[in-house]
Amino acid sequence: MKVVIVGGVAGGMSAATRLRRLDEEAEIVVFERGAHVSFANCGLPYYAGGVIEDREALLLQTPESLAARFRLDVRVRTEVVAVDPVARTVTVRDLRTGEESAESYDSLVLSPGASPIVPDIEGVGRALVLRDVEDVDRLVGELNADARTAVIVGAGFIGVELAENLRRRGLEVTVVELADQVLAPLDPEMASPVADELRGNGVRLELGTQVTGIGADTATLADGRLIPADVVVMAIGVRPETALAVGAGIEVGPRGGIVVDASMRTSVEGVYAVGDAVEKTDALTGGAGLVPLANPANRQGRLVADVIAGRPVRARPVVGTAIVGVFSLMVAAVGWNEKRLRAAGRGYRAIHTHPQSHAGYYPGAQGMSLKLLVDPETDAILGAQGVGGDGVDKRIDVIATAMVGGLTAAELADLELAYAPQFGSAKDPVNMLGYVADNLRTGTTATVQWHELPALVEAGAVLVDVRTPAEFAQGSIPGSLNIELDQLRSRAAELPDGELVAICQVGQRGHTATQLLRQLGRSVRNLDGGYRTWQAGRMPVGEFV
Amino acid sequence: MKVVIVGGVAGGMSAATRLRRLDEEAEIVVFERGAHVSFANCGLPYYAGGVIEDREALLLQTPESLAARFRLDVRVRTEVVAVDPVARTVTVRDLRTGEESAESYDSLVLSPGASPIVPDIEGVGRALVLRDVEDVDRLVGELNADARTAVIVGAGFIGVELAENLRRRGLEVTVVELADQVLAPLDPEMASPVADELRGNGVRLELGTQVTGIGADTATLADGRLIPADVVVMAIGVRPETALAVGAGIEVGPRGGIVVDASMRTSVEGVYAVGDAVEKTDALTGGAGLVPLANPANRQGRLVADVIAGRPVRARPVVGTAIVGVFSLMVAAVGWNEKRLRAAGRGYRAIHTHPQSHAGYYPGAQGMSLKLLVDPETDAILGAQGVGGDGVDKRIDVIATAMVGGLTAAELADLELAYAPQFGSAKDPVNMLGYVADNLRTGTTATVQWHELPALVEAGAVLVDVRTPAEFAQGSIPGSLNIELDQLRSRAAELPDGELVAICQVGQRGHTATQLLRQLGRSVRNLDGGYRTWQAGRMPVGEFV
Repeated sequence: MKVVIVGGVAGGMSAATRLRRLDEEAEIVVFERGAHVSFANCGLPYYAGGVIEDREALLLQTPESLAARFRLDVRVRTEVVAVDPVARTVTVRDLRTGEESAESYDSLVLSPGASPIVPDIEGVGRALVLRDVEDVDRLVGELNADARTAVIVGAGFIGVELAENLRRRGLEVTVVELADQVLAPLDPEMASPVADELRGNGVRLELGTQVTGIGADTATLADGRLIPADVVVMAIGVRPETALAVGAGIEVGPRGGIVVDASMRTSVEGVYAVGDAVEKTDALTGGAGLVPLANPANRQGRLVADVIAGRPVRARPVVGTAIVGVFSLMVAAVGWNEKRLRAAGRGYRAIHTHPQSHAGYYPGAQGMSLKLLVDPETDAILGAQGVGGDGVDKRIDVIATAMVGGLTAAELADLELAYAPQFGSAKDPVNMLGYVADNLRTGTTATVQWHELPALVEAGAVLVDVRTPAEFAQGSIPGSLNIELDQLRSRAAELPDGELVAICQVGQRGHTATQLLRQLGRSVRNLDGGYRTWQAGRMPVGEFV
Repeated sequence: MKVVIVGGVAGGMSAATRLRRLDEEAEIVVFERGAHVSFANCGLPYYAGGVIEDREALLLQTPESLAARFRLDVRVRTEVVAVDPVARTVTVRDLRTGEESAESYDSLVLSPGASPIVPDIEGVGRALVLRDVEDVDRLVGELNADARTAVIVGAGFIGVELAENLRRRGLEVTVVELADQVLAPLDPEMASPVADELRGNGVRLELGTQVTGIGADTATLADGRLIPADVVVMAIGVRPETALAVGAGIEVGPRGGIVVDASMRTSVEGVYAVGDAVEKTDALTGGAGLVPLANPANRQGRLVADVIAGRPVRARPVVGTAIVGVFSLMVAAVGWNEKRLRAAGRGYRAIHTHPQSHAGYYPGAQGMSLKLLVDPETDAILGAQGVGGDGVDKRIDVIATAMVGGLTAAELADLELAYAPQFGSAKDPVNMLGYVADNLRTGTTATVQWHELPALVEAGAVLVDVRTPAEFAQGSIPGSLNIELDQLRSRAAELPDGELVAICQVGQRGHTATQLLRQLGRSVRNLDGGYRTWQAGRMPVGEFV
């Protein structure tokens, strides 16, 4: 059996090494267009910033090490330029010599990845991207050549990672983003603390605009302003590499990725595809989606090796868990966000909390904001987002696991999560999300979202802020009354007639107030996430306001 | 409706506050024998050690704050001494005056907790325990009175937390433990790094022995040795407080806890019980167990309020997730351990790994050891243990969630866990456990456990260490041959006939070697967890050796 693999990173290399462990006899050839295989692509921004000091640390394997350990025939700087699925051959070009040759296969695995999108604007030839080791070498070369200013186009994960790392090297950094917010996977009220963190660390943000041209040492914005830019990096997103597949008559889906079944088979017999180049099955809808992340790529690589070795395995749908560090913040998300649910017309409930990383009575607890999205019919978990310090990763990982395990939102309350005061809380933030979900599910309480307030106020609702007068004095929602929670029982008669909205700092006292007022016969809802979510939500000029 | 709650910590107070939120009209009376309610009992060792500096931080609520916010009638230093379930009254003693009175109830919730076990040995009157704020005041009093030496009896969670905190205050600390290992929830090979950590931080461990008497400034061990002990603390475990329940004719189970159903109802009409005093349903067997942990206590407290308020809720079986910090180590566990599975005669598979907290190419990764226990018939996850630096809590929480979600061990491979190089790995440690489980489940590979080696060697098995000669030279299993992995293909003929065991540092290269040798026709198994687990396992004189 001869297996040819196109692409020697993540999915491709996972496939090759797994296949060797399953089949000592197979002939396994890996073609990689770049100069390196199995490199740490998620480490590139941190090498640019000097956090990872040693370039060698990025090179996890070499063709030589893979030959010695796994008897793999790995050829770098070698591009597969055509596939003949009938003859079961590929045409291979040696990029050093330009020479072409044919290579036969029994099974072909395409793992070409996704390439950075580069818009067709004036001067774009000077712009860098950050996909592989050669790219980062180029970037580091410019940084070492005394670059002082940088424009990063795109405030996605790679854009913000780069912004942090270029700041670390002392550059003046501007991030230009077409959307009104950074980090598209987040909803606007979750993204605004990230924007604050970037700005607080000296990153200039230009949101809601774009770079229309690149000059010798500037980038031009849509409104004509020139931004100093010794370095320009394009980080607006990636696009599946499908040229080879298309040329071979392999089906490409509506999202632009190679179509595969649950065994990673493409539409063409004998050809498989994995990783960022393929469309994955979304866990929520069963539909196709692009999820260019390392974890599913590696998983698919191993899986396709199993399939080729004759094992009955099937890929699971993906929930798309992702995380990024932004200076002192951890930012993570899984599943769908509210923007996407609204756009798709799906019903949902949103829950915002602002818990601490561990018990407040133990020193060093860090704050975080969590958001949970829940199906109002089934109580299924649709997605979650977290922004904050320590422990955001843990909560999102737990929720991602609960989603895969089919737990409902209310069942998060029952999870037994490890508690000692320096590591968590007896009622963990994830449990608390479950408690809130359960209260909503059972109709015990009702909430309103930050973006619903203007319409409610317009309709005559009274905002009751139940924080202490001292908290209230430090900032409050315009038009709200202040009666602190511990006086609410005795002073409830002071409240005007009509619909009420209870407000506190994070939503917890507001919940107690809501329960009290409801039992006193009032129609009342709690402001979900409290003043803090409202404050975070009104910053960007998002689609909600 | 009048609800009387006995015990004002964790379960009791969760019940009281939840009930108020559900029912503004209910009369809610909480009796607490001690001087404080709702205190941070898990923080007591850290207050003793000075990590938590402010004693007030331990007092999360007071009777006054609970009255103001939740209209609770909370009476401290008041003990409920008898229940008359027919008349629905309790007899209440004011511990300041000794006066007794009767209090009626419609529903009675018992949340008396569990009390530290104090053995009947000579001089034990001088020994302290650590259950409540008064206890820690007493301990701090002795520490401030120039105590220089301490003996802690029991190396469970509280014992090791106290050991760390008394070392922090500069005391000479000896921990005496009847078992051959510290931290009974761990298996011996997982506990030995914790013992090393304690010893490395100057804690003297006396394992496999006990304190038989306490003198004026010493504790006497079973072999007659005297250990300096200005302070003696008993931390050998806790026992459910059932005197009140027994007096009322309420059923107590075989484990010594109050028997409750899934709605926290005791055997007596109108009486509920929650928290450390009750027997909980074990998730693995459905049988009864004692799980004196804060998370289930709080959960049960909220749940019993729902039941009393007429809501149809049911407690879930418990998996018993727990964590403890030991100097620089995080130690966490969930479910059953190997000792318990063996004792119960249950079949299981054990998997040991030694991953890093995040991608090795990013600076600052910390090592950890993980252990997964798997049902060999169903591939269900039976339990897990983790010892190490950063991120042990995350992995155990994810596994605990997977257990509740009914994921199989192999399905851990499919989890999408948040990956950026500073927070995890593209193949997270939890994924890797799943990969190993899948290889075992499908018969792709076979492993042997560290404690099986002696018998295998006796029977003639050949140990093949596939690490590099440099690693081998730093320590190896007696009698093993060294052929490094990358030479194994060419040198396989050098291996003697017979059964082989492949050995590497952590089990990963051993797996590749095993796959290679199997395909070369050899009968071979991989040493699970590699040299490191073997080394950890042979330290204690445990039941396995």
